[in-house]
Amino acid sequence: MSDLIPTPQVAAPDILRCAYMELVVTDLAKSREFYVDILGLVVTEEDDNTVYLRAFEEFIHHNLVLKKGKVPAVSVFAFRVRSQEEVDKAEAYYTELGCETRRGSFSNGIHNAVRVVDPLGFPYEFFYEVDHVKRHAWSYDLQGAGALVRLDHFNQVYPDVVKGSAYLEDLGFKRTEDIRDDDGVIYAAWLTRKHTVHDTAMTGGAGPRMHHIAFSTHEKHNILYICDKLGALRRSDMIERGPGRHGVSNAFYLYLRDPDGHRVEIYTQDYYTGDPDNPLVSWDVHDNQRRDFWGHQVVPSWYTDASFVLDLDGEIQPVIEREEPKEIDVTIGADGFSYTRKDDMETGIKLGRQV
Amino acid sequence: MSDLIPTPQVAAPDILRCAYMELVVTDLAKSREFYVDILGLVVTEEDDNTVYLRAFEEFIHHNLVLKKGKVPAVSVFAFRVRSQEEVDKAEAYYTELGCETRRGSFSNGIHNAVRVVDPLGFPYEFFYEVDHVKRHAWSYDLQGAGALVRLDHFNQVYPDVVKGSAYLEDLGFKRTEDIRDDDGVIYAAWLTRKHTVHDTAMTGGAGPRMHHIAFSTHEKHNILYICDKLGALRRSDMIERGPGRHGVSNAFYLYLRDPDGHRVEIYTQDYYTGDPDNPLVSWDVHDNQRRDFWGHQVVPSWYTDASFVLDLDGEIQPVIEREEPKEIDVTIGADGFSYTRKDDMETGIKLGRQV
Amino acid sequence: MSDLIPTPQVAAPDILRCAYMELVVTDLAKSREFYVDILGLVVTEEDDNTVYLRAFEEFIHHNLVLKKGKVPAVSVFAFRVRSQEEVDKAEAYYTELGCETRRGSFSNGIHNAVRVVDPLGFPYEFFYEVDHVKRHAWSYDLQGAGALVRLDHFNQVYPDVVKGSAYLEDLGFKRTEDIRDDDGVIYAAWLTRKHTVHDTAMTGGAGPRMHHIAFSTHEKHNILYICDKLGALRRSDMIERGPGRHGVSNAFYLYLRDPDGHRVEIYTQDYYTGDPDNPLVSWDVHDNQRRDFWGHQVVPSWYTDASFVLDLDGEIQPVIEREEPKEIDVTIGADGFSYTRKDDMETGIKLGRQV
Amino acid sequence: MSDLIPTPQVAAPDILRCAYMELVVTDLAKSREFYVDILGLVVTEEDDNTVYLRAFEEFIHHNLVLKKGKVPAVSVFAFRVRSQEEVDKAEAYYTELGCETRRGSFSNGIHNAVRVVDPLGFPYEFFYEVDHVKRHAWSYDLQGAGALVRLDHFNQVYPDVVKGSAYLEDLGFKRTEDIRDDDGVIYAAWLTRKHTVHDTAMTGGAGPRMHHIAFSTHEKHNILYICDKLGALRRSDMIERGPGRHGVSNAFYLYLRDPDGHRVEIYTQDYYTGDPDNPLVSWDVHDNQRRDFWGHQVVPSWYTDASFVLDLDGEIQPVIEREEPKEIDVTIGADGFSYTRKDDMETGIKLGRQV
Repeated sequence: MSDLIPTPQVAAPDILRCAYMELVVTDLAKSREFYVDILGLVVTEEDDNTVYLRAFEEFIHHNLVLKKGKVPAVSVFAFRVRSQEEVDKAEAYYTELGCETRRGSFSNGIHNAVRVVDPLGFPYEFFYEVDHVKRHAWSYDLQGAGALVRLDHFNQVYPDVVKGSAYLEDLGFKRTEDIRDDDGVIYAAWLTRKHTVHDTAMTGGAGPRMHHIAFSTHEKHNILYICDKLGALRRSDMIERGPGRHGVSNAFYLYLRDPDGHRVEIYTQDYYTGDPDNPLVSWDVHDNQRRDFWGHQVVPSWYTDASFVLDLDGEIQPVIEREEPKEIDVTIGADGFSYTRKDDMETGIKLGRQV
Repeated sequence: MSDLIPTPQVAAPDILRCAYMELVVTDLAKSREFYVDILGLVVTEEDDNTVYLRAFEEFIHHNLVLKKGKVPAVSVFAFRVRSQEEVDKAEAYYTELGCETRRGSFSNGIHNAVRVVDPLGFPYEFFYEVDHVKRHAWSYDLQGAGALVRLDHFNQVYPDVVKGSAYLEDLGFKRTEDIRDDDGVIYAAWLTRKHTVHDTAMTGGAGPRMHHIAFSTHEKHNILYICDKLGALRRSDMIERGPGRHGVSNAFYLYLRDPDGHRVEIYTQDYYTGDPDNPLVSWDVHDNQRRDFWGHQVVPSWYTDASFVLDLDGEIQPVIEREEPKEIDVTIGADGFSYTRKDDMETGIKLGRQV
Repeated sequence: MSDLIPTPQVAAPDILRCAYMELVVTDLAKSREFYVDILGLVVTEEDDNTVYLRAFEEFIHHNLVLKKGKVPAVSVFAFRVRSQEEVDKAEAYYTELGCETRRGSFSNGIHNAVRVVDPLGFPYEFFYEVDHVKRHAWSYDLQGAGALVRLDHFNQVYPDVVKGSAYLEDLGFKRTEDIRDDDGVIYAAWLTRKHTVHDTAMTGGAGPRMHHIAFSTHEKHNILYICDKLGALRRSDMIERGPGRHGVSNAFYLYLRDPDGHRVEIYTQDYYTGDPDNPLVSWDVHDNQRRDFWGHQVVPSWYTDASFVLDLDGEIQPVIEREEPKEIDVTIGADGFSYTRKDDMETGIKLGRQV
Repeated sequence: MSDLIPTPQVAAPDILRCAYMELVVTDLAKSREFYVDILGLVVTEEDDNTVYLRAFEEFIHHNLVLKKGKVPAVSVFAFRVRSQEEVDKAEAYYTELGCETRRGSFSNGIHNAVRVVDPLGFPYEFFYEVDHVKRHAWSYDLQGAGALVRLDHFNQVYPDVVKGSAYLEDLGFKRTEDIRDDDGVIYAAWLTRKHTVHDTAMTGGAGPRMHHIAFSTHEKHNILYICDKLGALRRSDMIERGPGRHGVSNAFYLYLRDPDGHRVEIYTQDYYTGDPDNPLVSWDVHDNQRRDFWGHQVVPSWYTDASFVLDLDGEIQPVIEREEPKEIDVTIGADGFSYTRKDDMETGIKLGRQV
């Protein structure tokens, strides 16, 4: 593995933060019900084919675009940069990398952006110019019990995490945490621009695919409420994993699956990472508290399922399998059955340590 | 099944509430570490063989006794009655039922009680006279982030829930909720005296055994903190199930296993049940939100494991298996493997409805 | 003071709990906006002159009636009793006391009740027969971030607390807490039937008047949300006092004023009081943590303002002033100005102690 | 007013964040009790004259230094910069401004820093080199119910907010919010470097003085717990203001006074401000929800009291009064008495609007 992407000679753009994702959904009404009626995201604007959504504390036009289409997929991961000049730098950067780039306004409210298919195969957008909209930070009358207040991060699946992470670090991201084994294999890496644990993460697996998009709540009880609401609506089937405490990131989490199977994380309370010497935290892949600090094993679908990503023409990007080893928590017991909970094990789980 | 216990002619005692449990533990220091250092229960008094513990809002001498012994077991489920006269009524009640009864002070701080082995084989105590101790309701300086403020309930395992529940209803308990199937089989019943969902519950299974003892916190974040603390102490192996929201009782829950495997529930926020016509809530055993309102399947150990109970001489009570059907959430998939999570299923789970 | 009400020969009725209050409001639309749109109470039924409301966990027809009228007042404090026979006992009890009583159905959903003007001048109702309605305990989709889940208690203002409290204790209430001074003067008393700190309280002051009606939330953050929502709606003028922690009752509180000035408390987390020997907690009137455990002085309007109560014909009951001493937190500083915050004091506040 | 500080020709240093404050305290044992035993800050190291403290998620040596001395004061406000080169740039910047600067290691764990008395008279330090210590983000076993997890900001009092704010904006701070009147007078300004609402604020008043230092908790209940703990310890006199919701910053707050009267804010949940075009929020000084979103008036001491600051030789900096107008919430009623609560007013408070 790990035939690295070359580092361009030109400077990387000054990325501020992950800003929005565009999701292709097959039934816009069902998706709108999930993201607006159930999760309560704010509608900035919408028409028959597209819904533009944002979190309550956002002041830019949108954090999520739902676009009607035939196959569920992600058509772009968009990042905001510090100025329009930085958009040009992004274009030059990817041009040097030999990637296809396009300039234009691809989305309502956002102007003069650049889109690329990056060397890993992910569709990325970089933009600065954006319409400002009302920041509903103080609108508690509109915010429900499970209010999503910020877009926090993306998570991307790619077979070679070392390669993917090095490419993102060249692009100016800082690695805050990762998961490794004693042989130095990297299973996942968390990478940030703003002052949180990540703006995006690389999860080892068949890719390029999108693992999840994450929105923040203010507090943990807001996340518990979302579960209670789904239970009350008899939609608990939408809860894939959690709620729980992550080891990595120290955040409280919940994973949902939208009507097309796109995974959405609800997330709260990681830590400040803005100093240049912010300490890297590495977790042992055998540490059963790395993914769930309370030791619960991760449900297999969380490791295997992810969304396709598209190229700039809307075609599905081909997926490459990850070579072994894979990070997965299913253990085969002495009886030949698979067990997904620690208490069923014949023998104890080897406990790793945070290093 | 269901050869019912006869209803005595004499009046049942006026039971106030579940009051304390006596646990036999094999390593007193380890158990003390769990209940005092980790869970933070208040020590009323202790010696080399016994530790008397209470919750922060309690004003009677204890809610839990840890007693050093060779085999982990429960030596008594104790209930407080309204007066000393009611202790006499309890004695008469069980005498008429043909049960062995003993009078005396079996525990520090509690006087003039009666102990019996009840018709189901459980060791019960009824008492009124008790030493008052400081109620630490206002002692926030002593209460930690996961403060256990009240003893909430017991949970007993018994093969015939209809028989067990009818016996407890004769004794004056009111049924608030149960789990059934379309054939009228009862899988579990919740029974109360104080104004909450239960003082004790009957869970169908091999018994007589003790399923769990439950303490309350004020809020849900207190329960989440206990998980975080166990994670920080690298004792997440003590977390068996949860945290989550119960369907039955509507409470937020967490199940822990103490060093001897005794199960402790941490519990918060059920509802008022004090009116005589409080509506019974019956759940369909096929409703996957009955035990976890968020649809998570229950870990198998939670259905199978429970603690032995002792007779008045400290001998282990023999255990009778429950006949089929058993309530269990493991499903065998089309591939012959067992699955303990809904998302792995070949076919969807039949969703029941709260009736 | 304290010419006590005689104790009747006949038995007092077996009261379960405070059950509902009927408020006369001058602008039904405005009051509905406050109680339904802002506070989120559940509407059981309504017409042009009356709105019947309940808390989310309630299964009886209503906990609050808003009735259109010319002068803001309370037309009844209603208590539920254990059976229809107990309604008859209530009638006999008050007949012996020489009070006017009326039988009938005074309110939709409630049948065969008795209403009285009690010896203190308060309009009381006792009922058992009531229509059951859906208990929305599990309806998290309907419950908002500040969901009111139970009616917790009433609070009555009366000039002679000793007399009022003794009368209520005769009626079967148990005193759980009070406020006193070294001369034995009682300033307020908390009295309970269900297993909480109170179903009603007697606050010393000009009366008979209604001080407040209190609804419970599950957790403290639900109460904070109500404040945030009122702030967002630019209705912070409705917040009279709090949020804060009570010394008395140990509950977390907030006091609002409805459009007619009726006071509503939002309340959470007191403690279990169901044992007959539940220890009485007495607070020193000079203890500045008795009313607010964090030492904040109480705003003067909270001591002076209260709602009129009506007789059975809808006439306002005359109000008798309380003789000195009065409980009030304003202190006159050395400069002749009044100070309502401890930090302005020339000399420290005498700190009392919980006894 | 507003004779502005000239903008230097040389570049401003790249400031990361507010990093620590050094407080002179008169009784080190009492101050240690407050900051360590009550508030639970982590001790990095200490000796007879100095205690070095940090928040739980911090990885640099300290966020607060307590230094024994004769007069309570602040000896430094310290900011971390991006590299050692930026320390040199800070030195050059203040040299050009004609300020006295000193190089050295003024504090354990921090190396090669520069200290200055800035043009407003405040002692500032800029540093990069610092010893790393354990980040206790995951140490839930050590974190109490009121755990302070980050240093959030400083707040400085100065008579001319326009002048002070312009100087800080030259230094690279971004203004996120302010308080104004219709005449364009600025009463206070919030200024940030990291991605929160502020690293420091300018509050109009007699200065240079230190208004407060603020630490963050994860959630609001952590702040409520601190109040409950102070109540339990009978130290509610330490609570000056709050808890409440700020209008400005949207954060939940509490103000405490340490044994020397230094003010400490406990703070949680403001919003992301990292984009260069983050919208400025301006509040009307007549808007009674600007300082407390729930409309509670601010206690007078909060406007008048603040700590002295020292020059580099440890001498108290002279204090200059602010000219009128002053921001203060006390209103003189028709009766000639001052009122500090809205409900006592003869006339309503003019409600301003967030613009």
